[in-house]
Amino acid sequence: MKVSIIVIGDELLIGQVTDTNSGWIARYISPYGWEVNDVQTVSDKADDIRRAIDRAFACSDVVLTTGGLGPTRDDITKTVLRDYFGGEMITDPSVTENIHRIFGRRGLKMNPLTEAQAIVPSSCRVIQNRVGTAPVMWFERDGKVLVSMPGVPFETSTVMAEEVFPALLERFPSQVNIEHRVLMVTDYTESALAMKIAPWEDALPEYLHLAYLPKPGLIRLRLDGHHPDRDFIVKEIDRETSRLKEILGPAVLADRDLTPAEIVLDECRRRGLTMATAESCTGGNIAHELTLIAGASDVVNGGVVSYSNEVKINVLGVDAADIEAHGAVSIPVVRQMAGGVCRVTGSDVSVATSGIAGPGGGTEEKPVGTVCICARCGDREVYETARFNGSRERIINSATSRALILAAKLVTGKL
Amino acid sequence: MKVSIIVIGDELLIGQVTDTNSGWIARYISPYGWEVNDVQTVSDKADDIRRAIDRAFACSDVVLTTGGLGPTRDDITKTVLRDYFGGEMITDPSVTENIHRIFGRRGLKMNPLTEAQAIVPSSCRVIQNRVGTAPVMWFERDGKVLVSMPGVPFETSTVMAEEVFPALLERFPSQVNIEHRVLMVTDYTESALAMKIAPWEDALPEYLHLAYLPKPGLIRLRLDGHHPDRDFIVKEIDRETSRLKEILGPAVLADRDLTPAEIVLDECRRRGLTMATAESCTGGNIAHELTLIAGASDVVNGGVVSYSNEVKINVLGVDAADIEAHGAVSIPVVRQMAGGVCRVTGSDVSVATSGIAGPGGGTEEKPVGTVCICARCGDREVYETARFNGSRERIINSATSRALILAAKLVTGKL
Repeated sequence: MKVSIIVIGDELLIGQVTDTNSGWIARYISPYGWEVNDVQTVSDKADDIRRAIDRAFACSDVVLTTGGLGPTRDDITKTVLRDYFGGEMITDPSVTENIHRIFGRRGLKMNPLTEAQAIVPSSCRVIQNRVGTAPVMWFERDGKVLVSMPGVPFETSTVMAEEVFPALLERFPSQVNIEHRVLMVTDYTESALAMKIAPWEDALPEYLHLAYLPKPGLIRLRLDGHHPDRDFIVKEIDRETSRLKEILGPAVLADRDLTPAEIVLDECRRRGLTMATAESCTGGNIAHELTLIAGASDVVNGGVVSYSNEVKINVLGVDAADIEAHGAVSIPVVRQMAGGVCRVTGSDVSVATSGIAGPGGGTEEKPVGTVCICARCGDREVYETARFNGSRERIINSATSRALILAAKLVTGKL
Repeated sequence: MKVSIIVIGDELLIGQVTDTNSGWIARYISPYGWEVNDVQTVSDKADDIRRAIDRAFACSDVVLTTGGLGPTRDDITKTVLRDYFGGEMITDPSVTENIHRIFGRRGLKMNPLTEAQAIVPSSCRVIQNRVGTAPVMWFERDGKVLVSMPGVPFETSTVMAEEVFPALLERFPSQVNIEHRVLMVTDYTESALAMKIAPWEDALPEYLHLAYLPKPGLIRLRLDGHHPDRDFIVKEIDRETSRLKEILGPAVLADRDLTPAEIVLDECRRRGLTMATAESCTGGNIAHELTLIAGASDVVNGGVVSYSNEVKINVLGVDAADIEAHGAVSIPVVRQMAGGVCRVTGSDVSVATSGIAGPGGGTEEKPVGTVCICARCGDREVYETARFNGSRERIINSATSRALILAAKLVTGKL
């Protein structure tokens, strides 16, 4: 089944908000063999929304729209849909009840603008939005379906998973079997990797397709297979994935779609190890990446953001003389940070960073983007001085990723 | 000038990568009165790319494409553009030279796949990509322009700012004056805010337009004005912004487009204060938000991620008896964390969080989403127990935002 997504809102076209709904929807429906054909991002103008619906219906049987349903006057999607699908504007008492329930639970005072969210076109079937006040509207025309959902990502994903997609699956039962496998590969540039696996890739049958998805310090290789026979495609994709793993050897950091942070946590948990972070230039981002993962508290004791030299010395026990002699951005300092945070937090594993994220602070010897990284596991450690390009944010992200990759290699014994 | 953007790549339609280029481009061009008409996200299929170009040319004079230019075989944009605009595939020696320069600088080995990036349609004018190997291609037809740019965000923004947009401005000089003002508003829901300012909003002239952009704990109000007379629109928009600030009083946290983290850092810097973080459930995200901002090191000494109780007690000096009596997620603990981190890092200002990010760990009394927050500035402090909804990531982000808003209110004297 092909799906077109229309993302509605001026805020997206002026770049104040980034659309994450379309990606979420794509990830959610793909295991069912459903595919997103295209995503159109359009303004809150009636003509633009209408034209986008026409285009979407021209290539897909299912059209999902997100956004443009807020209580304020800049949101006009509902009127456009009434004009498109016909009918009158009517107040739906079940929506009114839902809004009162939500406002009551949050302890908020009701107001007329919010009440107006219960007014919907008579041509739609309302699906209740358990987590927000904007109703979900299901329209049909000529055997095709358009579902209008709210744009707040939390609401979109909740209503999609709980209500909209189950109803769509019932309306359009799934036929094709789709399978995919993912390898997380380090140590190669994208083109070097492509060269390395070219003979294998050339020999792939037409029902298997390979995609390269570079991420900082990693390439995610995704092998997709489509076939009416499920057993056949599973066997085929598993065989080709095994071949690819043999070709790439220890460069394969994981054979599932895991982030370096997930690999570190899984391996530490399996081995009963605890972990801590000591961050200067990454400023807490490594700890954040780790603790975003549910269950991180089994493994992560904590960490120290040692931005100033005083915190490096007083909290982590870095030798002031070493900072004096080698600079804060140096291998001796980052090694002491990694050791210090294990001691202070009572942890087995640690990662430490110290670098120059920029835009200021670079020197000829240590330009912006220079980052010293150390990962530690028991008595073993690995350290390096890396040089990253780009903005401050990019350097912080690259250093975070590299530090976690080093830790993943160290704890999984791939070094 | 109206612009259409086409974002190319299967990885976007399966949701493995989120497009941030279109938003960046929109923010970059809007001060010049240029607007993004629509964004189309399409697969790496020739027909889809062709159809998207047709649609884009139907409504815009300038079409910008990003992505689909990698060295691997899944990227076919270049061939599609050759077919669309005509000409032969030729090797451009200036691109070959650029690729060699970049590979040399990065110490990478050249390979045929990368060399092939220098092959371009003869119908295009090549613009050199200083920061990557994929060339930028400029095509013209019937007075309209299509520019194909690489999709790596760092490369897209660099070539756009340094080369592509200056060339476009020369080709299509800017006419209209566009101005906007932003207020960051707290303490209101979107609908309550809309009610509060309805009389003012109703009276706005047609050349001014208001947009509501809710963020966690904040609403960003953006007032846009378009007019041929620059002095007139500046005067008008400033007058209406002042009126709005009067109506909203201390609920206006800032009258520029600043994040709570930027407000805290700016105010601390102005007052010569230093800052630290003590984070349990937010796991380093507050420190990360602060240190993402260039120049954070003037203000931020560091922080402690005290995930385990041992770190709370041993590093931050929280009283073990209070953890025993009130639990780790409690006001007494979070106040001691805020005080402790000021002492340990020698800082004037701090924020501390302790909560249950989920999905596990909730109790009837303290369900998932319960977060105790304390902000401290000298001897003054403010603390609260908040309750957030949604996923683990959403709870962490909401708690981060709320903690920084409390700190911003405290340091700017709006409490």
